Amino acid sequence: MRAIQWNEDQKTLALIDQRKLPAELTMVVCEDEYQTADAIRTMVTRGAPIIGVTAAFGMVMAAYRASAADVAGLQADLQTASDVLNASRPTAVNLPWALARMMRVANEPAESKDALCQRLEAEAVAMAEEDVAINKRMAEYGAALIEDGDTIIHHCNTGALATVDWGTALGVIRMAHEQGKQIQVLVDETRPRMQGARLTAWELQQYGVPFHIIADGAAGHFLHTGQVQRVLFGADRVAANGDVANKIGSYMLALAAHANQVPVYSVFPFSTVDLALANGGLIPIEEREESEVLDIQLMGQQATPAGALARNPAFDVTPQHLLSGWITEYGIISPPFDRNFEKARKSAT
Amino acid sequence: MRAIQWNEDQKTLALIDQRKLPAELTMVVCEDEYQTADAIRTMVTRGAPIIGVTAAFGMVMAAYRASAADVAGLQADLQTASDVLNASRPTAVNLPWALARMMRVANEPAESKDALCQRLEAEAVAMAEEDVAINKRMAEYGAALIEDGDTIIHHCNTGALATVDWGTALGVIRMAHEQGKQIQVLVDETRPRMQGARLTAWELQQYGVPFHIIADGAAGHFLHTGQVQRVLFGADRVAANGDVANKIGSYMLALAAHANQVPVYSVFPFSTVDLALANGGLIPIEEREESEVLDIQLMGQQATPAGALARNPAFDVTPQHLLSGWITEYGIISPPFDRNFEKARKSAT
Repeated sequence: MRAIQWNEDQKTLALIDQRKLPAELTMVVCEDEYQTADAIRTMVTRGAPIIGVTAAFGMVMAAYRASAADVAGLQADLQTASDVLNASRPTAVNLPWALARMMRVANEPAESKDALCQRLEAEAVAMAEEDVAINKRMAEYGAALIEDGDTIIHHCNTGALATVDWGTALGVIRMAHEQGKQIQVLVDETRPRMQGARLTAWELQQYGVPFHIIADGAAGHFLHTGQVQRVLFGADRVAANGDVANKIGSYMLALAAHANQVPVYSVFPFSTVDLALANGGLIPIEEREESEVLDIQLMGQQATPAGALARNPAFDVTPQHLLSGWITEYGIISPPFDRNFEKARKSAT
Repeated sequence: MRAIQWNEDQKTLALIDQRKLPAELTMVVCEDEYQTADAIRTMVTRGAPIIGVTAAFGMVMAAYRASAADVAGLQADLQTASDVLNASRPTAVNLPWALARMMRVANEPAESKDALCQRLEAEAVAMAEEDVAINKRMAEYGAALIEDGDTIIHHCNTGALATVDWGTALGVIRMAHEQGKQIQVLVDETRPRMQGARLTAWELQQYGVPFHIIADGAAGHFLHTGQVQRVLFGADRVAANGDVANKIGSYMLALAAHANQVPVYSVFPFSTVDLALANGGLIPIEEREESEVLDIQLMGQQATPAGALARNPAFDVTPQHLLSGWITEYGIISPPFDRNFEKARKSAT
């Protein structure tokens, strides 16, 4: 079952409600761009690749439901829809990337509103299919780096739930496992939203990959005592110099791996690279509600005192010099990122 | 109210049940060495200094309740009690340190069982009083390093709850605040047992020090973006070269501070130094039950899937080169630790 399902007949989008996993596997259905933006904002669905595709379908629903009288009116409505969707979360560049791609289609001359709607739908469907194909290519490139017997630390969730299917960093792990390599995973629980403990652990159970959940702060101990061979995570936005914004905690994990000579790879499609930003310091970092940190129970008992305040940055930036490589659909990019990314881009076109 | 209270009349020890904070402030009463060992093992009380003093009172209760016929029999019983207490937790050296100190008293010639019991009681009471005096001295030395306007990251709980009173690293923060310095604290929640979110946050509320709770993985972001001026934590055992074993997550925090030129201090009494161990790699690291990682609820909902496994090391080792200094009751020890510790020790005697 895919985490994102387009209903062609009803023009609605069903999303696995990732807030309820692993306790419950239920779907949320979106019927327009506002419900879609809300699903992204409240993290019904999360993960850079899937929120890009989700927003694309949000544009399709906006088109089909628009009350505009003509093509020009529809194009104006779509610009508004794009703005609404783009405002849902700030860090992952896949969101503006997907919306820009949809707006390119929206702004082409169209013979009728219907024709434009159909073209937008075809574009979103293509984007979803491309995502799966790209993820499989990344998984194959990445799996070649994994050796039999490896213990891998993985941060957040980057699996089938974070993409249309297969995943990015978790896709690499799944592929290595399917190739018969004996690997095991230390799953960073990834506070505050626990995407590792809730989602990655749940996915690894489906795939049959052996794993242990660890507190985020424990990764350093395993790295320092020689128990880990690789560190893998995804990316929400990659600057032109190779700095990677990813789920909060990635930076400290990369520091600990680097200090102990354990290779760290960030896995992402080319669409995650934002060449407009020279370095990671320019990437906007979302700060989310305090309740995500404060509303936590340990063994059934509230773990924070009433009246306490919290800070909750949702992402951090891993400087490029801490990374051993960037795994993309065009192969593994070695440092220096800027030069070698350009090379991979050219060979790709 | 102190976290540890000796009842002279009844020869019992009352401990704040730190597992129940911040929801409930209740006491657990221990009547013998077995109950005391259990209170340490299950973390009714925790923190290197307080578990040393708790074990000392465990010895006193063992003495008063021993059925031995004579002094020699009592001394043998006390050796057994010491072994029982010593087995309760492995990492903090304050535990064997306090027990060795009590056994020195136990093994001195005594005219009667009663006299020996009273001498042991006097020793434990003295140890508790010394702890408070030592902590205040450390707090004064440490507070001199804190500047007006500082934001400080603090890991785990090292306050009045972790000691007989006042605290180690948190004592420094409290002293700086009482001196009128405008400071604020980013409180690492300190998974898995949440001593930061549960205990340090609660203590800071009592002292009126402004704070925000953060996920452990978020510390790197605040350090990297220049929002933090100092990092402080305690110690459970310090090797002869200055490597510090402390609550899991301390190492990654120290790495992130060091990478961003933010000074990191470990605060501990001389009794925490274990000169028998050349470096931190020799310090025994406790691995606790998986349930501490797995039994966690986010917004009221179980955050790990049924059947998941966990790894749960309770401590890690921060290599000495990451530390800017060691704050002790004999002043601040600068690197290199081994030479300057010896100097401080000599000037102290």
